[in-house]
Amino acid sequence: MIVRDINKILKDEPARVVSDANWTSIRMLLADDGMGFSFHITFLEAGSEHVFEYKNHFESVYCMQGSGSITDIATGKTHAIRPGVMYALNAHDRHVLRAEEELVMACVFNPPVTGKEVHRADGSYAAAEELAD
Amino acid sequence: MIVRDINKILKDEPARVVSDANWTSIRMLLADDGMGFSFHITFLEAGSEHVFEYKNHFESVYCMQGSGSITDIATGKTHAIRPGVMYALNAHDRHVLRAEEELVMACVFNPPVTGKEVHRADGSYAAAEELAD
Repeated sequence: MIVRDINKILKDEPARVVSDANWTSIRMLLADDGMGFSFHITFLEAGSEHVFEYKNHFESVYCMQGSGSITDIATGKTHAIRPGVMYALNAHDRHVLRAEEELVMACVFNPPVTGKEVHRADGSYAAAEELAD
Repeated sequence: MIVRDINKILKDEPARVVSDANWTSIRMLLADDGMGFSFHITFLEAGSEHVFEYKNHFESVYCMQGSGSITDIATGKTHAIRPGVMYALNAHDRHVLRAEEELVMACVFNPPVTGKEVHRADGSYAAAEELAD
């Protein structure tokens, strides 16, 4: 059994805390935990806007706090994001995520993120086999 | 892109809401969504105690609200559960989960739950191939 506390990770395990200019993601579970998925808690700053496209991953995102919206770029359709709303990128959907208030999201990736990925210019993560060691 | 709202599910999609005497689980994603995992929001009543052992699944559980504890039956070790604590059953660990205050948990299952499983007397879910249609 693995037990982890986000508050201890934030204090003592900086390697599990990944930040960009306006988001921070805490990696609660990664590929090497052997669960077959990874699990992250992600904070997106109020007023920020993000274009993501996980070409190599499925991702589900559940909103725990905050408000904003998501636009599916292929269809142009926009959905409100508020606590209790989940979106799942089952078609590697390119999308725009906007935080009106700070968003706190519970994210699941399949295949699991290894922790070595970085967001590329196109908004994707590399597949694990593309990553250098 | 799949978008679902827990509040709409609670109101309009009873098939996605599964309850036992003292817990309720809302199935936000199931096997037929094709994500390779399922994602559930589970409410465990204050004062309740549960013995679970997912012999056929890995499960991670992130505490969003409430307080309680989890005991790993194999080791006898007990961990406090509070918002921000996650446990991951990476060895199909038989465990006791106790809710002191109502717990609200974000749960991920791999392989994904189909929605047809029931908890058996031993606290497990059947493997998908054991389920009758």
